[in-house]
Amino acid sequence: MTTATATSTRIFNFAPGPAVLPEQCLKQAQQDIWNIADSGIGVLEHSHRGSVIKKVFEEAEADCRKVANISDDYAVIFQQGGSTLQFAMCPMNFLTPDKTADYLHTGAWSKKAIREAKLFGNVHLAYDGTGDNFDHIPGPDEINYSANPEYVYYCDNNTIFGTEWSAPPQTDHLLVADMCSNMFSRPIDINRHAVLFASGQKNLGPSGGTLVIIRKDFLEKANADLPVMLDYQTQVDKGSMLNTPPVFAVYFMGLVFKWILANGGLKGMAKRNDEKAKLIYDAIDGSDFYQAVARPDSRSRMNVTFRTPNEDLDAKFVAEALENDLSGLKGHRSVGGLRASLYNALPMDGAKALAQFMADFAQKNG
Amino acid sequence: MTTATATSTRIFNFAPGPAVLPEQCLKQAQQDIWNIADSGIGVLEHSHRGSVIKKVFEEAEADCRKVANISDDYAVIFQQGGSTLQFAMCPMNFLTPDKTADYLHTGAWSKKAIREAKLFGNVHLAYDGTGDNFDHIPGPDEINYSANPEYVYYCDNNTIFGTEWSAPPQTDHLLVADMCSNMFSRPIDINRHAVLFASGQKNLGPSGGTLVIIRKDFLEKANADLPVMLDYQTQVDKGSMLNTPPVFAVYFMGLVFKWILANGGLKGMAKRNDEKAKLIYDAIDGSDFYQAVARPDSRSRMNVTFRTPNEDLDAKFVAEALENDLSGLKGHRSVGGLRASLYNALPMDGAKALAQFMADFAQKNG
Repeated sequence: MTTATATSTRIFNFAPGPAVLPEQCLKQAQQDIWNIADSGIGVLEHSHRGSVIKKVFEEAEADCRKVANISDDYAVIFQQGGSTLQFAMCPMNFLTPDKTADYLHTGAWSKKAIREAKLFGNVHLAYDGTGDNFDHIPGPDEINYSANPEYVYYCDNNTIFGTEWSAPPQTDHLLVADMCSNMFSRPIDINRHAVLFASGQKNLGPSGGTLVIIRKDFLEKANADLPVMLDYQTQVDKGSMLNTPPVFAVYFMGLVFKWILANGGLKGMAKRNDEKAKLIYDAIDGSDFYQAVARPDSRSRMNVTFRTPNEDLDAKFVAEALENDLSGLKGHRSVGGLRASLYNALPMDGAKALAQFMADFAQKNG
Repeated sequence: MTTATATSTRIFNFAPGPAVLPEQCLKQAQQDIWNIADSGIGVLEHSHRGSVIKKVFEEAEADCRKVANISDDYAVIFQQGGSTLQFAMCPMNFLTPDKTADYLHTGAWSKKAIREAKLFGNVHLAYDGTGDNFDHIPGPDEINYSANPEYVYYCDNNTIFGTEWSAPPQTDHLLVADMCSNMFSRPIDINRHAVLFASGQKNLGPSGGTLVIIRKDFLEKANADLPVMLDYQTQVDKGSMLNTPPVFAVYFMGLVFKWILANGGLKGMAKRNDEKAKLIYDAIDGSDFYQAVARPDSRSRMNVTFRTPNEDLDAKFVAEALENDLSGLKGHRSVGGLRASLYNALPMDGAKALAQFMADFAQKNG
């Protein structure tokens, strides 16, 4: 009843990442792994310097620019190492011991980014949500910027606590955004940013590829004499082809960009994501059984965090949901409870099936 | 006539990397992308913390250890960033401005590694093949080690010039080996090494994954306060799961390790690789038409570099070979001429077809 289609062998996947991907992209990849573009060679096996993969990369970049309306003031590059390497690359490129960046500390991911930044320069904590256990996104009154930061860093969506910025922080300084878990889930104001990055495995594709969007004139301030792989300017100059890139991850991102464009673009994504999130938050708010973790004004559309009345019921919920083909609903170990991740590719039917399951489970166990 | 099978839509792929992969691994991947282990979720979409991917990683490591007989004195980790990031990570972890490593400079790849090492410590060039345009691997008389290097670095196979060490350099110091292009193509003496690394896209799998084998007691000498992604000790402690790993690349390496084990292990690989290389070198040596680039005592079994009498004929060779379903034979732009890459997964029939084409082409154009 809750499976995707009567003929499908697949179940609904609410995992926080790696996460569900569009089925039509999976089907295309199945073909192209054997033989892409009638070349007689699979996508994994082509030289990255050859015409087939060159076209894959050119289209991925062009479609990415179309998706988010990215101007020529910005470079678009595909990297490896995930967001965790970006946590280090940003300060390695743009900080020195006599420079300061402002960090807005909203959870586990910003904590990791702050640790890396301190290796290269000064970190001013413009906001620290530790005391509130990161249950909300700060309002302007809670933020104190330093006088002249090199950049202001924020994590746009916090997968673990289930909070999300409704708009970028209000500041005149250029922003660096970790958009790992909500990139391309809604329209973005690219132009307020120096750097935006997202690893693949939420809304963009498989793990192993990282999308970095970087303002070209900001690059002029970058440090010299860095290892080539960690030098943004070199990576931009080489057009993501400094060394052998993670071809399959970029190829798959390209398929997803085309899927986004064919499904209403970022506005279409946002509309469906809002609807899916509303289904689950309504299921929480409409019951006395479930309790939301994040403050209502800070709720993530990507990761809905909630609890049943106790841990035993949380565990029972996860197990029975899986029996009903609803997978990946356990909360992160540091927060506990339950978490439903509702990325772009999670079908509306999946959200409906979960909402129905939640109602049934509450009725039986309430 | 030269295609793999009458029913296949695939051609023979002599590309230097990314390169041909075993067809049975490709077929397995086609299935698992839709639904792996009957879980209802594809391999790209599973949480890396879940049981399905945990098993994939555990088996990949166990099979890797079996393939190369790797003892518990060594850690086996799967990384991102390719060999180019390893060029930086080795000196970042093990050098300081008052420490020295010895580098054996045999071509374009060691040049890149030397550039990175100089950012972190002192490089002693124990051998420099620049003057001979890297046409051979140095003998013991050509190498001058420093008094007390932290490690001795070498590139085991030079894809561009087509040279390969027949055995690791003779020294009592621990070695660091770039085995990017010949890893698991023959038996290896792991125990003479501090670190061995290879990015996936030659003998191991697709690009985007990097295998690193590292001696545990050598890690005790590593520097502290590094970015976590670049800290070998942290990566080892976290068992390749510090952050979301490149799941598909590791999954595919795991398939290839099983394929190696099922096909005679490293001895089986070496035997077939020797036979394939002999077919092509015999085609060169048995003609007055072709000329080998590398010195006979230093010839690579992986990348056979050669020339026809002139550049026009080189270009004609590449074009006509492709018409005969023999792809990827153009030499690297810095050396020119022709190059046939004969990695593990290149079928014997491919080498035979190329040898036959070479004979035919020489007869027609000689």
